Amino acid sequence: MSQATTQATTQATTKWVYGFGAGTADGRADMRDLLGGKGANLAEMSSLGLRVPPGFTLTTGVCTAFYDNERTYPDNLAAQVRTALAEIEGHVGAKFGDPDNPLLVSVRSGARASMPGMMDTVLNLGLNDLTVEGLARNSGDPRFAYDSYRRFIQMYGDVVLDIGHHHFESLLETYKDDHGQVLDTELDADDWRALIGQFGEMIERRLGQPFPQDPEAQLWGAIGAVFGSWMNQRAITYRRLHDIPAGWGTAVNVQTMVFGNMGDDCATGVAFTRNPATGEKEVFGEYLVNAQGEDVVAGIRTPQPLTIAGKQASGVDLPAMEETMPEVFTQLGEVFAALEGHYRDMQDIEFTVQKGKLWVLQTRTGKRTGVAALKIAVTMAREGVIDREEAIRRIDPASLEQLLHPSLDPDTDRVVLARGLAASPGAASGLLVFDSDEAEARAHNGDAVILARIETSPEDIHGMHAARGILTCRGGMTSHAAVVARGMGRPCVSGAGDVRIDYAAGTLSAAGTTVKAGDVVTIDGSTGEVMLGRVPTIQPELGADYEILMGWVDAARVLEVRANAETPADARTARGFGAEGIGLCRTEHMFFDTERIIAIREMIMADDEDARRAPLHRILPMQRQDFVALFEIMAGLPVTIRLLDPPLHEFLPKTEPEFAELAEASGTTVAAVRQRASRLRELNPMLGHRGCRLGVTHPEIYDMQARAIFEAVVALGGNGATVEPEIMIPLAATGRELALLKARIEAVAAAVEQESGAELHYLIGTMIELPRACLRAGELAGNADFFSFGTNDLTQTTFGISRDDSAQFLSAYQEQGLLEHDPFVTIDVDGVGELVRMAVARGREARPDIKLGICGEHGGDPASVRFCHRIGLDYVSCSPYRVPIARLAAAQAALDTR
Amino acid sequence: MSQATTQATTQATTKWVYGFGAGTADGRADMRDLLGGKGANLAEMSSLGLRVPPGFTLTTGVCTAFYDNERTYPDNLAAQVRTALAEIEGHVGAKFGDPDNPLLVSVRSGARASMPGMMDTVLNLGLNDLTVEGLARNSGDPRFAYDSYRRFIQMYGDVVLDIGHHHFESLLETYKDDHGQVLDTELDADDWRALIGQFGEMIERRLGQPFPQDPEAQLWGAIGAVFGSWMNQRAITYRRLHDIPAGWGTAVNVQTMVFGNMGDDCATGVAFTRNPATGEKEVFGEYLVNAQGEDVVAGIRTPQPLTIAGKQASGVDLPAMEETMPEVFTQLGEVFAALEGHYRDMQDIEFTVQKGKLWVLQTRTGKRTGVAALKIAVTMAREGVIDREEAIRRIDPASLEQLLHPSLDPDTDRVVLARGLAASPGAASGLLVFDSDEAEARAHNGDAVILARIETSPEDIHGMHAARGILTCRGGMTSHAAVVARGMGRPCVSGAGDVRIDYAAGTLSAAGTTVKAGDVVTIDGSTGEVMLGRVPTIQPELGADYEILMGWVDAARVLEVRANAETPADARTARGFGAEGIGLCRTEHMFFDTERIIAIREMIMADDEDARRAPLHRILPMQRQDFVALFEIMAGLPVTIRLLDPPLHEFLPKTEPEFAELAEASGTTVAAVRQRASRLRELNPMLGHRGCRLGVTHPEIYDMQARAIFEAVVALGGNGATVEPEIMIPLAATGRELALLKARIEAVAAAVEQESGAELHYLIGTMIELPRACLRAGELAGNADFFSFGTNDLTQTTFGISRDDSAQFLSAYQEQGLLEHDPFVTIDVDGVGELVRMAVARGREARPDIKLGICGEHGGDPASVRFCHRIGLDYVSCSPYRVPIARLAAAQAALDTR
Repeated sequence: MSQATTQATTQATTKWVYGFGAGTADGRADMRDLLGGKGANLAEMSSLGLRVPPGFTLTTGVCTAFYDNERTYPDNLAAQVRTALAEIEGHVGAKFGDPDNPLLVSVRSGARASMPGMMDTVLNLGLNDLTVEGLARNSGDPRFAYDSYRRFIQMYGDVVLDIGHHHFESLLETYKDDHGQVLDTELDADDWRALIGQFGEMIERRLGQPFPQDPEAQLWGAIGAVFGSWMNQRAITYRRLHDIPAGWGTAVNVQTMVFGNMGDDCATGVAFTRNPATGEKEVFGEYLVNAQGEDVVAGIRTPQPLTIAGKQASGVDLPAMEETMPEVFTQLGEVFAALEGHYRDMQDIEFTVQKGKLWVLQTRTGKRTGVAALKIAVTMAREGVIDREEAIRRIDPASLEQLLHPSLDPDTDRVVLARGLAASPGAASGLLVFDSDEAEARAHNGDAVILARIETSPEDIHGMHAARGILTCRGGMTSHAAVVARGMGRPCVSGAGDVRIDYAAGTLSAAGTTVKAGDVVTIDGSTGEVMLGRVPTIQPELGADYEILMGWVDAARVLEVRANAETPADARTARGFGAEGIGLCRTEHMFFDTERIIAIREMIMADDEDARRAPLHRILPMQRQDFVALFEIMAGLPVTIRLLDPPLHEFLPKTEPEFAELAEASGTTVAAVRQRASRLRELNPMLGHRGCRLGVTHPEIYDMQARAIFEAVVALGGNGATVEPEIMIPLAATGRELALLKARIEAVAAAVEQESGAELHYLIGTMIELPRACLRAGELAGNADFFSFGTNDLTQTTFGISRDDSAQFLSAYQEQGLLEHDPFVTIDVDGVGELVRMAVARGREARPDIKLGICGEHGGDPASVRFCHRIGLDYVSCSPYRVPIARLAAAQAALDTR
Repeated sequence: MSQATTQATTQATTKWVYGFGAGTADGRADMRDLLGGKGANLAEMSSLGLRVPPGFTLTTGVCTAFYDNERTYPDNLAAQVRTALAEIEGHVGAKFGDPDNPLLVSVRSGARASMPGMMDTVLNLGLNDLTVEGLARNSGDPRFAYDSYRRFIQMYGDVVLDIGHHHFESLLETYKDDHGQVLDTELDADDWRALIGQFGEMIERRLGQPFPQDPEAQLWGAIGAVFGSWMNQRAITYRRLHDIPAGWGTAVNVQTMVFGNMGDDCATGVAFTRNPATGEKEVFGEYLVNAQGEDVVAGIRTPQPLTIAGKQASGVDLPAMEETMPEVFTQLGEVFAALEGHYRDMQDIEFTVQKGKLWVLQTRTGKRTGVAALKIAVTMAREGVIDREEAIRRIDPASLEQLLHPSLDPDTDRVVLARGLAASPGAASGLLVFDSDEAEARAHNGDAVILARIETSPEDIHGMHAARGILTCRGGMTSHAAVVARGMGRPCVSGAGDVRIDYAAGTLSAAGTTVKAGDVVTIDGSTGEVMLGRVPTIQPELGADYEILMGWVDAARVLEVRANAETPADARTARGFGAEGIGLCRTEHMFFDTERIIAIREMIMADDEDARRAPLHRILPMQRQDFVALFEIMAGLPVTIRLLDPPLHEFLPKTEPEFAELAEASGTTVAAVRQRASRLRELNPMLGHRGCRLGVTHPEIYDMQARAIFEAVVALGGNGATVEPEIMIPLAATGRELALLKARIEAVAAAVEQESGAELHYLIGTMIELPRACLRAGELAGNADFFSFGTNDLTQTTFGISRDDSAQFLSAYQEQGLLEHDPFVTIDVDGVGELVRMAVARGREARPDIKLGICGEHGGDPASVRFCHRIGLDYVSCSPYRVPIARLAAAQAALDTR
């Protein structure tokens, strides 16, 4: 059988349409991949006996087939739709297109994952010049009927016929002006009928054909528009932001209309079974009397609270449903209990009351803040509704971040100046500063500052540390600014491309507004917003629910979680967040201190090894003290210290006064300093003279660092009981370079042992960050007690993509579906992942007891943590603020593979 | 058994010492790995019945054991040496240390590969205050005896005791001054005896102990010094330049002394069985009467030619051996015939005549120029001495480069400054430099230099390597300069006796003209001329031997050889050298033309796709013409065209006037141009927005290029018979990006087919240059008709080394033995090679008929070509001048795996 024939046969026997309503359904809640979330839950609720307007769902398979076959439908779809429609007609006792008793339907999208507002919806479908009269007669409300018809025409015109809103609105405005009317409610049935006529003429004029009167043509038009909207730019962008594959497709739900706008015994509303902001167990929601569902979302009318308590809490002085419709409110409470009991999770419900009768239109697991998620999961587990494993599974690890950072007070107005990437969560306000030295100086004087740079470099570390928040025009989610900010727990908006910074003028411009240095701005690293002035923030509390959950988490996980930290402050934060050691201490960050940088620069200027030793000797006691401090904080836990990694030119001065200072300090000329700087400059520093290559050419640097580590151990008692230093040699590509450097470190250890009489316990290992290191892992393992995968650099080299330069094209790649994830955020399992697996296998074969971990940014990404668990690493290491996330992700990974 | 015990047992049963002499030998010529070249050949000659002074060889295994065990010898070595020494004593009838009839020996190094002058030698060992008297009595020549003793003390003092030459020389000079002597020959036995006393006092004063009198202690001192010299800096540098692994070690040869300096019936000489410069079948060599071997090499006395013909050719007016010692000369001819007949290759022979008796001290395969190698191999194959395969194997592919190098234009006037010996053929011009360090430094900066030295020594190796040509005032055709230059393929004029070099003044004078360091001179190593200024060169004729050999080569090889070329000139050169198509046409090289670069820049400045199309449209006809030209030259052969690869910023202007010009051309401001330039700037352009990433974000560029290619095919007839374009998409990392770009190219092809009515035949493939591409080769092969391995970039990413920045550390890596080869010259088989093999396997599995080639620099490196053959690639592609090298290397690889 040919492939085409097979496909045709499969299509012929496929069920494309699933009906629901009147207490039965073809589908179930666990069929969300096929029916979408909305469709699956409508089926489930129908089977549960809840009052759901009858309807049917066109599966996501139709969407996939539609796009696979140049936007055509499977042959037998039309027949299945016709059958399903006939079934609804039977349940409802109305007929599609029947002028006397017309069946009206809504057509909505419903993907596997919720994509609120992303795709199109059409209501009141089935109305035409004839059926509208039937609706008028049956409802006894001609105004309602004609209003519904004109709404349908507007919606259909916009969504299906691609005639912009404003064409309809300008006709409406003109009409009201001509008739001295202001509000839509002032228009009566005749007004709407007249406008419907004008709408029709306008449509015919624009399209060359009249508004479709055939309900079946209307239906297929709407279905086509919903499937088409799966590929609109908004939806593509949303999917990219939320990691939803385009291949999932959307389902389409066709459902009998019910009306919340047929009078004051009608209403429509949205409710949560628990408070989605706090997680408290209380009914939470809003409704509108005599309105359609869209009116609640649109926010044109102020909705009323459901409960008296809610009314008091929000301070809204409008009657609660508990007061105005007590019977319906009681029914609603029963529906809530039934749904939460059935789904065992907080539900987000849409309902309509038509002539005093409650209809449930949708239920889904409710979105909630991190705090609420935590409280709901812990509460439900303690109530026995779910078990602890389920509670662990329920929390999106990423949502924990919200718990850890201050956030903007949601109740405050704000002027958004620009938007960038939400690079490091939390919000911060402060004086705008464009220079790191100034940031430090002003912070020293007690000012809160926001550091804004076109991009940041290692020289900005002190400024970033001093700032409350960081803003850059360039760079992605893993740019220097973003990585460092997350490590420091500083809010950061990166890559705000619309922002122009003029260092010379000391100004920042965006959206036609110019702000000067010293002006106050606010950034929100959780949304990417840059705002004018100060927006008040609120401080989070971790609370009891957090502690309880993390206790369960730690019992469930197998992976150890360490932190990437080098400052005592970071190390303390990390330990506070439950880090079980340091997985990456980047020693170069210790060199930018004012006292030390000049010594480092003198060392760089020196012409031979002997001359380099003198300035290094001055740094030794400081570096030793760095380690003493870290070891004290991490007492009893392992600390992995990476020896100097970046190319030396990163430490060299850039400005004239600095050149002069360095020339004087190293007894040479400014010309010589400049020449050295230019000799060290690199075209591709990422692939340059760095990592262990420095250790090979400048062995005295690693000697000094090893000595500082060992002397720090000795200073703390020396027997290794309080600390287990793991010395990490970066960027190894061959076994020989590792062997050479390992021997030197061991020689330093032996010297310190002899001088101190102490016995040293330590490990020597390497950072695996080059493809060659993965391939030659067996050879490397012969000289390494441990491997730590530096997946940032490994991703850069495997993909041949510089993180710093990737912003120019990575977003285009994601938009065009060429990459599912940013490989710097979530590990590329097929490429980088294969190299890591290879290195694990070859490393373990050569040395079965080798310790394996990861210390790239991926160590704090839940999907990557899952990968690390699956391939059997011993630990992950991530920035301090990501430690709880990694702990949770590790627990979830362990539960999944049980 | 523990490892240590196993090793000890192995050592106990190992034969460390191999004897030879008096018609027998323990070793054979094919044992050179164990005995070194010299030792193996001494054994072989001894077995052949040639007169070889008896001796023994300490194996290279001793050297390896010495370095593996902290510079100590195997336990049973001493006993084996003692036994071997006793055997010599038996053969010679003299006794080591016997005051009446002392045995004297030489101690010399002898590695597997010849390393001329790199390591140390001690002669006349066994002399002491007592045995010297025995020697005086037995030789009847006390002056000879004391002269030999003082020579031994000087040599031993320098080599073993580390007392510099000058300490001895200043004593000698003082002595001569005090006694009114000028030449060494004026000193008689008593003078030497007095000086020996002074030498002894000086040594005792410096070392605190007397000169060793015990011959056995002398012997072990010398053996230790030779093994030690394996790790001296000169030897390390030489090995690095010649790719000799440190692990091979050296052997040590201890051999009975024979003396060429016992009177006028004594002589010493060096000879080649064929002319090593031209390959002609004629005796070629030099000798000195009453001299020791070292005197010939040192170039202090002008050596005499062996033959009358040689005398005429060189214009040296000294009697030839053919005239002065006709009997010995006849014997020598017999030895030459025997050795060449036995070894079936041209031999380089050292001999000594002691009292009219000929002794052969060494034979080895003679170093020769590329031209000579070719002639010898082809001649021998046609003589039936070797077969064609052997002839192919005999030519070092790298030596072919010399054939391709230009010679002086005979029709140009030249100012000849001086004439020397035509020591190594070829012509070269460059800045005059008198110092090897400076030669290296200037060459590093890109200057062509001519190194001029009074004479060269092993310390000059790096300078000779860096220079384009070498000139010496002293030394013959077999001097250090001549031998090394021929080995390296550098043009060399040696022994230009009329030239005076004043190192202090930095001048060279001849024929009344003085030239300064930094002035330009030209040398012609084929004529011996030294000329003022730069003399124009012409392309050489490859000659009949070349054509014959390459015919055999092409019949033997399996790999196809293509060229990397984009200009018509390069393409013609490549085809002339036998390229079978173009493997890499880098289209970006076509964009730097003045007319085009401004259009390219306008395109870069444009803000959207439409605006970019206009300047691209202007480039289209020019680009089409590029391809028409290439296709015409390569008619009937495949042409692989790589679409635009480098990041766009490479095309942007750098200077202010260019900024202004571009601003005007694209109707914008200089500020806007500068801003665009700064936005496009990249931190790591190698890993940046380049390759197919440009194709994704700027599809109109590849559209234009694809159209230019297809329109060029149509212009040439269109049916694909004359040309097979292979369109190559660079830098792919995922199958999806390849699929996307392939579809666009196919759409362009379809459009051109429709417009022209022609049917197009073409391939679309990708350049594999990222580790991820190798890992995902199966996925890529689904969208690629061919893979071309871009091993330059693949090496950069796999190793994480930027070629541009690697100079800072790669030489340190090679010096420290961390890397055996520069991975950018010879493919890293273990790392990069594994990825390539993986990609070959996965690519072929997914698409069995996929075409596989390599187009990195490695395509012209013989060792890498061998790798490509072994893994079954279809072709290699290299720069035009390397095509013959690649053809030969491919043939050798095919013969090796037969």
